[in-house]
This record gives sequence, C-alpha cells and structure tokens, in this order.
Amino acid sequence: MQLVLSIDPNSNLTLQSQLIAQFHNYIRNGQLQPNSSLPSTRELSLQLKVSRNTVSEVYDSLIEEGYLITKHKVGTFVASTLPESSVFIPETISTEHKRSKLNLPLPYSGRGQSGLHRAADMSLLYDFALGKTDSQTFPDKVWQRLLIDRLGGAARNMSQYHDPAGLLDLRQLIANYLGPTRGMVVSHKQVLIVGGCQQGLSLVAHLFIDNHTSIVVEAPCYRGTAYLIESFGGKVIPIPVDEFGIVVSKLPDHPVKLVYVTPSHQFPTGGTMSLQRRIELLEWAAKSKAYIVEVDYDVNFRYEDSPLPSLWSLDKNNCVIYTSSFSRSIGPGLRLGYIVVPTGLIDSATKIRSLLDNGSPWLEQATLSQFIVTGSFEKHVLKLRHNNHNRRDALVAALRENFGEVKITGAEAGMHLLWHADKNGPNALEIQAIGKRCGVGVYPLQDSPACFFENMPSQDHVLLLGYNHLDVQRIRQGISTLASAMKNEASLT
Amino acid sequence: MQLVLSIDPNSNLTLQSQLIAQFHNYIRNGQLQPNSSLPSTRELSLQLKVSRNTVSEVYDSLIEEGYLITKHKVGTFVASTLPESSVFIPETISTEHKRSKLNLPLPYSGRGQSGLHRAADMSLLYDFALGKTDSQTFPDKVWQRLLIDRLGGAARNMSQYHDPAGLLDLRQLIANYLGPTRGMVVSHKQVLIVGGCQQGLSLVAHLFIDNHTSIVVEAPCYRGTAYLIESFGGKVIPIPVDEFGIVVSKLPDHPVKLVYVTPSHQFPTGGTMSLQRRIELLEWAAKSKAYIVEVDYDVNFRYEDSPLPSLWSLDKNNCVIYTSSFSRSIGPGLRLGYIVVPTGLIDSATKIRSLLDNGSPWLEQATLSQFIVTGSFEKHVLKLRHNNHNRRDALVAALRENFGEVKITGAEAGMHLLWHADKNGPNALEIQAIGKRCGVGVYPLQDSPACFFENMPSQDHVLLLGYNHLDVQRIRQGISTLASAMKNEASLT
Repeated sequence: MQLVLSIDPNSNLTLQSQLIAQFHNYIRNGQLQPNSSLPSTRELSLQLKVSRNTVSEVYDSLIEEGYLITKHKVGTFVASTLPESSVFIPETISTEHKRSKLNLPLPYSGRGQSGLHRAADMSLLYDFALGKTDSQTFPDKVWQRLLIDRLGGAARNMSQYHDPAGLLDLRQLIANYLGPTRGMVVSHKQVLIVGGCQQGLSLVAHLFIDNHTSIVVEAPCYRGTAYLIESFGGKVIPIPVDEFGIVVSKLPDHPVKLVYVTPSHQFPTGGTMSLQRRIELLEWAAKSKAYIVEVDYDVNFRYEDSPLPSLWSLDKNNCVIYTSSFSRSIGPGLRLGYIVVPTGLIDSATKIRSLLDNGSPWLEQATLSQFIVTGSFEKHVLKLRHNNHNRRDALVAALRENFGEVKITGAEAGMHLLWHADKNGPNALEIQAIGKRCGVGVYPLQDSPACFFENMPSQDHVLLLGYNHLDVQRIRQGISTLASAMKNEASLT
Repeated sequence: MQLVLSIDPNSNLTLQSQLIAQFHNYIRNGQLQPNSSLPSTRELSLQLKVSRNTVSEVYDSLIEEGYLITKHKVGTFVASTLPESSVFIPETISTEHKRSKLNLPLPYSGRGQSGLHRAADMSLLYDFALGKTDSQTFPDKVWQRLLIDRLGGAARNMSQYHDPAGLLDLRQLIANYLGPTRGMVVSHKQVLIVGGCQQGLSLVAHLFIDNHTSIVVEAPCYRGTAYLIESFGGKVIPIPVDEFGIVVSKLPDHPVKLVYVTPSHQFPTGGTMSLQRRIELLEWAAKSKAYIVEVDYDVNFRYEDSPLPSLWSLDKNNCVIYTSSFSRSIGPGLRLGYIVVPTGLIDSATKIRSLLDNGSPWLEQATLSQFIVTGSFEKHVLKLRHNNHNRRDALVAALRENFGEVKITGAEAGMHLLWHADKNGPNALEIQAIGKRCGVGVYPLQDSPACFFENMPSQDHVLLLGYNHLDVQRIRQGISTLASAMKNEASLT
C-alpha cells in the first residue's frame, strides 16, 4: 500500500515529527480507519527513501500514543479504539448533498430507476415477482464444473483485453442457435455479445439517438426502453398495442429512426404480435425508412404452439436489429445477452461497444460457450419450459378456482401473466396490500417496470404475476392464501 | 429447442408434407446447419400438438432423403453432407454491406476504435505492448480458490438482479482503500462499481454531455476519452500538458462542464501533475464551475517517491469525480473498476448505470471482494510494484546501454515509458518495422491509443514501450536484439 505521505527537506521539523503529524491527521480525518493495516516498516522506508529505523521510530511513537497497535508477526494496524486526544474532526461522511457553494453543472435529471427490478422482499412466503429465474432448476453443479474447467487459463485471460464484440466461440454458437429457433441466417460477425438486453438497447440508442430524434415505442412498454431513449435526448412516441401487437395503422407519417417492439411476448401486456402485423410493420418500416429493434427478451418460452418467425427472419430490407439475453434462461446475475445487427452496422456497433465499456468479462462468456456446446443449455431450457408450462397452468387454474372466471392475458408465453381482478372488488394496490399482510407478493401492473402514457385505459385492477420461479405447490398455496385473506377482509368491512 | 414451424389446418397438404417442406427450406437456407441437433420426436410433437407418429414419419422421410441422420440413443441431426437435390440457395452470408434499397438512418459514424488495444502479435518474441498485465505474477491458484468458494451460491446469485451500483462489500472495501492510498474520505454509497475506467468515463459522459457541450481533455490524451466525448456530440477542447501536467493558464474562459485529467500518470506522456498545478486546477474549476474527472488508471505504481494526494482529496468544493480500475493491477479481462462521485451525483449516476446495462456480473465482484479482504490484493500489488520497478530500471538501463544517453520520459510511475529516439536515426515507424523483422514489438507513440491534436510538436521519433509484463531478462534481450538489428540495417544502407 503506497500511503500519500510527504517529506519536506526544508522543514525545521525532524523526519519523524513530519510523518507522525501526517499519521495523526490521517487517523483523525478517517482516511485511516480503525483496524486498517499499515505497510511494513521495510515497505514504507523504501517508498519514502528514509531509513527503516526512522519508520520504526514513527510507528513506535504512534503505538505509544495509542494510535497504532502491533500484532506479533502479523503487522501494524490502526487501533480499534483511538486515544481520547485523537479528537475526531466531526466531518463525518454524509450522503446528503453538501450544497456546494458553486453552481456546478447539473447532471442528467430525467427519468430513470436506481434498479430496474426491486430487491426481493424476504418477508414474503410466496412472491410472484417479475424478473427472477428459478435457482432450484438451474444445473448448478454442471455450471460450476464448466466454469472451473475454464479457470485454468484465468491469469492469462484476465491479463489482456479481448474483442469488445465478444468471444468468437460464443458468437458462433449464438449465430447457429438463431437459425432453427428464430429462422435467422446470420454470420457470427453480426452477433455482438452484450451485458443483457438493456445494454443491447443502450448500444442501439447510442448509435442512433440524438437530441429530438423521434423514436417509437409500444404503449405500454418497458421502462428501461423509454427512459433510456429520453436519457439520449430522444423523443419517445408511444403507439398503442392491441391483442395483435403494435397498431401499425397508428404509426406516424413523419420520419422516425427506430421502432422498439417486443413481438414474441409484449412487455408488459404479454401478447404475441401476429404474423399479419409483423408483415405490416416491416412494410411500414420499409416505406418509412426506419429500423425496427426487435427485443426478444422472453424467447424460448412459448407454451401453446410454435414460435412465430422473428421479424428479422421475415425482413428483406436489412432493417431489423435483434436483441435477446440469457437473463430469462440462465439468470440476470450472469449479465450476458447479444445483439444481432445488419452487416452495415457491425463496425459502428463494435466501436460504440468499445467506447461504452470495452466488452464483457471473458469468464462468463467462456463458461456459457461450454454450457451451450455440451448441450446443457438446451437441456436446461427444455426443463425450464416444461416447468414454466406447468406453473403457468397451475397459476391460471388457481386464479380461476379462487376468483372465478377472471380475465387473464399474456399467458401464452414467457414468465409472467396479467390478472385482471374483478372491477367491483379491491383494486390492484389494495390487493397488493392485503397480499403483503398475509405473506403473498403480488404486483400492480402500474407499479411494474412498465411505462404508461397519457390517454391509456385505466389499469388499476390489473396485476402482473411472475410465476416461473415458484413451484406448483407454492403457486396454489400462494393464491389460495391471498383469496382467503381477501374474503376475510371483505367480510370485515 | 422450439423450431419456428407452422401448420396450416386449411392446407390441402398433409401435416407431414407441410413439415417436410419447411425442413427442406430450413436446411437449404442454412437456418439448420449441417450437424445441428434436432428436437426429439417427443419434444417436437408436444410443441406442434401433433402425434409423435407424425413427427417420426417426417424425420424418417427426411432421413431417407439424406437430409437428416440418426444416431442411436443420441438423437437426430442434420446430415453433414447434404443430398445433391438440396440445392443451396446462393444467398450465402456476407459481411459486406448489402446495399439496402432503403435509405435507412445512418448510425453514429464518428471516430471510434473496434478495440482500444490491439490483439497480441504472436510472432513477436519480445513484445513491449501496452495494456497487458503480467499473468506470471498473478496468484492464479489463490484467485481460483476464492472464486470456487464464491461459486457455492452461483445459481441463487445468477437468478436475480443485483444493485446496479455494485456489490455492497466491494464498494465498502474500495472506500476503505481510498483513504490511506489516495487520501479520500468517502462513503461506500459514493463508490459505484463499473466495468473498467472506460465505463466510468462513459457514465460521466452520459450524465453531462449533450450536443455541443464543451469538454476539456489533455493534449495528448487517451483516445477512448476523446472519441467517447465526440460520440455524445460533445466538443473536445484539447489543452496542452507540460512536465507539470495540464497547463492551467491555457484553460478556456468560456464555460466547460468537464475537464478530464490523468494526474498520477498522464496518458500517454507519463508525467505526474505537480501539487502546485493540482491546486491551480482546482481553483480554476471552482472559478469556472466545472467538474474535474480524475482518471487514476495507473494508481499503485509509483517508483521514485510517495504518491501525491489525489485531486479529490485536495478538493473543498465537491467538484471532482474520480475513476480507477483493476485493469492494471489484476488485468483488463476482469472488467472491473469504480467511479467515486460527490454525494449530489450518486442518484443520477446509479440511474444511468441501470439504464446503460444494469450492472456488472456478481461473480467477479464477489471474488474480488474476497481477494481484497484476505490481503491477497495488497500482497499482489506489492509484488507487482517491486517487479515493475525492476523492469522499468532494466528497460531504462538497456536503452542507455544500447542507444547512449537517449531521452526517456514518463518513467516515474505506471507501466510504460516514452523513448525519444535519436532524431538523426530512423523514426519510430521505421524502428517498429525493424523490430518486427527481428521479433521485437515496439510502438510509435503516434500509433498508440493516444489522441493527438493540431499544432502539437512532432512525435515521429517517440516510441511507447510497455514493460510490466516482460521479465528483466527478456527486456534486456529484446532491446539488445533491436539495437543489433538497427545497427545491421544502418550498415547495409
């Protein structure tokens, strides 16, 4: 540890006194916290180019005063209890903004969120939260084995920069995977590894969005999309979705650069864009000279029938940018996803990724590659799909059993559905409050990471339930616990 | 694997014929590549809601035609050699930009780099490249053990989103570390984990830079800084550095929002900003109401004397933003660094990090925390500093031995130095070419990841040599090999 210490050769004070005074200050001001370890006398004498004796004298004096303690054969440390003479300067660390006397430049102050997903509420027995994966189903041992295999070259791999576009193997594996599953014929060069869909979106935003650039989003849409566009100075144009997806006839006549859509499983409403609507949207994009950003966040989890072809695979004009991630299949803590770009955008996208953060860590990428190559990924996804299918069925059945023929939407795919509660009963916020009292986490749609816009129909009786991380038993118990609590509360009023 | 397949109930064709036709297309178009594995008949029958027999008949027919092969108890695959009848549609994947008939929006086309650091040239025996760490010195076994310890909770930790600002433990450890080593008294709340200095810079840029925002950089500076500012539409104002750091008297009178500086080890010139200059810069910032971005990329490696106090620690106005990384101490493949912000910027910075990419993966953060807590980090840095010191001495000595009293600058700290070659001899590009022929990698300053500006003195005889990853023996051999080759070539002309 190189301490910030200085010696003034012209001072009247001895070397020792100069150093002791600086240690006093460091300890009093809190730069050196109680119990911090100090450099050895040898190390410090080398740094300061003074004799080891001088440093020893300084340490001895500070030990005598009670500032430092020494542990035999371990080292020298700041004392855990400081002498009374070391009056702490009351400049404690405060996270309140010390109002600067200066009018410093203001940072971006638009909408954002300090975390796209709330922290788990540990008080809940049954938590129908969104955005978690099922850690029970994950083949932990397989993943660990693959990761440990990769660790062999850790030092060498950590010692250098890698291609900011991602590990070649992983890009190739993803390109191969997109053929049969999304109907996409792409080269690995078109696939860039990113740290999740959100980074995919932010990369595209950086490429295209400038002040006042018009960007279409679905209404409602994911908050992370709308806020991101705003943070680049873009103008968000919300276009409503109906049961078939974004309403193409309502798209603007004036030029827009990008249209963000979630065709496989609209967020948050859960619908699937129809084939007809996909074709219409592509025709509109061709006419309007806009890029479509296809956000396939919930790929792999379709329950009723076969997935529809991706917009990318239907496109003849190279006007689709595709992004997806492993957050829903492996987990959001992995922070890996990918973006697929038309060949004309490869260079710009790689440049921007390099400027943003120089790429993702190699270890997760290398492990994921092995997870795919060995077939473990495909096996895991199959198991997840099977579980999610059962869990969705259990949730739909439990809702119908306990609440009658309630409207449920968005359940054909993905990991969450919308429960439209009885308009004559408590609203979503009230249901959430009742749930909280009985240990069941359910979430009003309007309180989800969804972004709503003016003139949209009221959603105050709609709840968003994530079901993929809860087993069938807990799903049933959770909903029946909630139903009982609601009945009880209703009978009391 | 959910294949994109559709069944038209109104078709005159049988189910089997419809599916066979789609498989033909998939294989011919390349969505299904040779040797790709197919879903089991059970899986596919479930997806398509047809009998397992139907799927078996489809597979059998395709096997007979030579499109598929089956491996007993393993599965069904696309044949590695396809039948002649499967004429490939010549729409092969090309990374040449297919000129779209559309005039799609143009992406950002300003300056960038497809990788901030070049890939290692394996033909070189002695490579004085920049930006690599010494994988030999890294305590690989310790790191692996700590990482494997952390892996216990892999599934649970991967199944959820974490705080985009980073793991609490790591933020606290960094806050504690910055006290004695940089004189900074900060709360862990002010410390945000980022994926390296470059992401720290890009976070700050996103917070403040808008079209035409004036931003001061050092001239010369790191390319990643200048290009990043440009990519946000900012206006780069280069201010020259002299041996004491940025020339404060040349800073502009008109308002600027940010001043990016590298006071510990100026990039690329290698100087250290003097205490006097630090105080002047802070005074200028207070007067001009600008934030200073202190980029401490080469912290920990000072050889001649003690580190100077950071700008942050000297600042009384909360107008410094500090960023550093573990790329120089552990390695750039780790992708971890941190940014420290004044309390008033914590919320905005966390929001932007969340919008950019939702945070760094947990595993590297958790491992790094343990690496610090157990004292391994400090021990490693001490060893690195010792090695780097010796290597720098060896490089300086080898240059003087072989080339006489040449000018060497920027050698007081860090991991690289500048060698000012004799102006009467070959220039830096010529020396690089000679080096390449004899297996020695040396790099012209002007070809480094540095950004130069108009009216700067010619650097065409200056080379930038990274020395930290080569042992003393190789450094000596490398320089003497280069010197012999240069003598030989000179005698031939």
